[in-house]
Amino acid sequence: MSSAARLEPGSVGSVETRYLDLPTPVRLDCGRELYPVRVAYETYGTLAPGRDNVILVCHALSGDAHAAGYSKTPLQEGTRDGFGAADRDGAAGRGLGWWDGMIGPGKAFDTDRFFVVATNLLGGCRGTTGPSSTDPATGRPYGSDFPVVTVADMVRTERAFLDALGIERLAAVAGGSLGGMQALEWATLFPDQVDAVVAIASTHALHPQGVAWNAIARDAIMRDPAWRGGHYYGTGLAPDAGMGVARMVGHVTYLSAPALDEKFGRRLQFSDDIRYTITEPEFEVESYLRHQADSFVRRFDANTYLYTSRALTYFDLARQHGGGSLTRALAGVSARTLLIAFSSDWLYPPAASAEIADALRTLGKPVELHVIDAPYGHDCFLLEEARQTPIIRRFLAHAGTSG
Amino acid sequence: MSSAARLEPGSVGSVETRYLDLPTPVRLDCGRELYPVRVAYETYGTLAPGRDNVILVCHALSGDAHAAGYSKTPLQEGTRDGFGAADRDGAAGRGLGWWDGMIGPGKAFDTDRFFVVATNLLGGCRGTTGPSSTDPATGRPYGSDFPVVTVADMVRTERAFLDALGIERLAAVAGGSLGGMQALEWATLFPDQVDAVVAIASTHALHPQGVAWNAIARDAIMRDPAWRGGHYYGTGLAPDAGMGVARMVGHVTYLSAPALDEKFGRRLQFSDDIRYTITEPEFEVESYLRHQADSFVRRFDANTYLYTSRALTYFDLARQHGGGSLTRALAGVSARTLLIAFSSDWLYPPAASAEIADALRTLGKPVELHVIDAPYGHDCFLLEEARQTPIIRRFLAHAGTSG
Repeated sequence: MSSAARLEPGSVGSVETRYLDLPTPVRLDCGRELYPVRVAYETYGTLAPGRDNVILVCHALSGDAHAAGYSKTPLQEGTRDGFGAADRDGAAGRGLGWWDGMIGPGKAFDTDRFFVVATNLLGGCRGTTGPSSTDPATGRPYGSDFPVVTVADMVRTERAFLDALGIERLAAVAGGSLGGMQALEWATLFPDQVDAVVAIASTHALHPQGVAWNAIARDAIMRDPAWRGGHYYGTGLAPDAGMGVARMVGHVTYLSAPALDEKFGRRLQFSDDIRYTITEPEFEVESYLRHQADSFVRRFDANTYLYTSRALTYFDLARQHGGGSLTRALAGVSARTLLIAFSSDWLYPPAASAEIADALRTLGKPVELHVIDAPYGHDCFLLEEARQTPIIRRFLAHAGTSG
Repeated sequence: MSSAARLEPGSVGSVETRYLDLPTPVRLDCGRELYPVRVAYETYGTLAPGRDNVILVCHALSGDAHAAGYSKTPLQEGTRDGFGAADRDGAAGRGLGWWDGMIGPGKAFDTDRFFVVATNLLGGCRGTTGPSSTDPATGRPYGSDFPVVTVADMVRTERAFLDALGIERLAAVAGGSLGGMQALEWATLFPDQVDAVVAIASTHALHPQGVAWNAIARDAIMRDPAWRGGHYYGTGLAPDAGMGVARMVGHVTYLSAPALDEKFGRRLQFSDDIRYTITEPEFEVESYLRHQADSFVRRFDANTYLYTSRALTYFDLARQHGGGSLTRALAGVSARTLLIAFSSDWLYPPAASAEIADALRTLGKPVELHVIDAPYGHDCFLLEEARQTPIIRRFLAHAGTSG
């Protein structure tokens, strides 16, 4: 870390993404094995001698291993254009981690106490093995020959990665959205190795409208001729047009209608009156969406979007582990669970978190559900840091043992 | 009409779409004049000798002049493939009009009393002049050289069409969604010629999230390389891929999340377990959306989608007629107004109808607002016929004079 950055209060300072190659293949739900598997990761804070203060932070669809601090390291692989850090949409930070407001000294995930580990998920495009990685069978990028991965596969990869780091137990596993799915999957797959779960703006199974939005986003990518059946690497082209549409669909689902109203209203972009144009953005919200699309396609791989979207759509604790019953699926959980949801989140609505809480309470397991009344929709999990922080700090007060 | 069809109770029987060429150019909001303009229309019931029993029915984004009965006539122009009738999505009817449940003897718009007229809107692709029509300046289809039209332009075209039919006054003008916008525009532009307005699941101005969804749908079309800047006619190609995405986006916004949940849940399409596929539909809702996309692109023109979506996005009574004030915009209205909204409609929410009702009440004008508690979202205006019918019949009881 640079000393200048280290002095900034609450910041973990300058960080670099590192890479670890797993020693053995990862067995996947689909029946295939994946090898080699590289995992991109960052760590913040200090590992306690007893190795009992580890918090694994899992990212959502468009995130990466750079969760906190300022990135000084370029990516090794996986992005077409070598853009350094996730330019977190809607955040001011250039090179700032996607959850920087939550991870650091004195923050929700307090690096004065905890050793926080963040990885890029399996199938990713920010350093961890994914569709843009080289297929050892062909010497060329996998493309759509990459196996279809599940949230459980992501978690098994994280498990293998922590094994390689010599970390057996997690004081906590935490994440929002797809990150929260990973946290819940951890508690289900490895109940004896997780002390606490923090699942924010997440669900045990995406509702059908969410399944629909994800299907539309994937179709927008796959209908782009530049997708070329998933084998666009090396062609000089990419399905940017389709992925831009996918991102715009996603973006609107991450926000609430009142938030869009408050932020943009029906304001026109250039004048007091309409200009009678089909092709040009006319309303501010139209221009904003195009900007979101353009900046996203510059930093993200379309195939990773497809695979990750498919994984979060498949995720269904009751189907996977309970023969259709959520209560049965959670019967083996031993972790304490903290669920946070946001009143205006219509993609991962509070009702889904309430179903998880009900199932855990029925089983007599310790669970807290906090529904935060906030207007920004699903994006609240990235924006409402100040209101999540005391809830998470209190929940983690007795986690781990030292720092 | 065929006698067999005529005998079916409540049906207007077999109908044919007719065409009328307007005698003079239509002046458009954008400053251009459009000529020639052909209007496709159908009529149901009998024009009273006093010509005082006319109800104009206006259609929504994907509708046409075939509002009721069974169509026996192929379209003259405007569809690429000559498909005959609007295969109304979600309705059983093959060739059945899009509002057949509402128009006919004894129905909401009672053809025993009223002479009901339905036209295809300006910019349409089902017989009325639109982007797929021949540009007299070039002898080829307009494509994106077609002028950008507004809801007011649609209404002026309907006014000119009724003039040509010798109809001066409307006992009522009615429609849902964009059709309701036309009805409200009629009452504002031609206050002395409209006795009653029936605006269902509509608004005085689409909210920003609706603006966003429409922008995404248009972008999906325009990003399809086959769109070719709007000049795809005669190439043997059309932006079907992009329009399919546009339709899927639209379709999800027309339904409510609970309706999707009730209709599809998270049911898988082929088996009890997932098949690990990115490209194939896996959940029933995914398959359903693809089917909706495929059937829509066979019957609808992409440029008409663009122009119509732009018009309904621009529509803003307060901006157009009130210097930003809805109350001022409605100050000249003399029609009685009936507003119907649906509790689960999040695209044209009840709050928008309430704003119109409030403005009219402030002005001391007669208005009724009925919010129907129904689960199917925006599509309720096409589905909840039984519950709308008594409200509309009561409202129209004193409209017109004979039938």
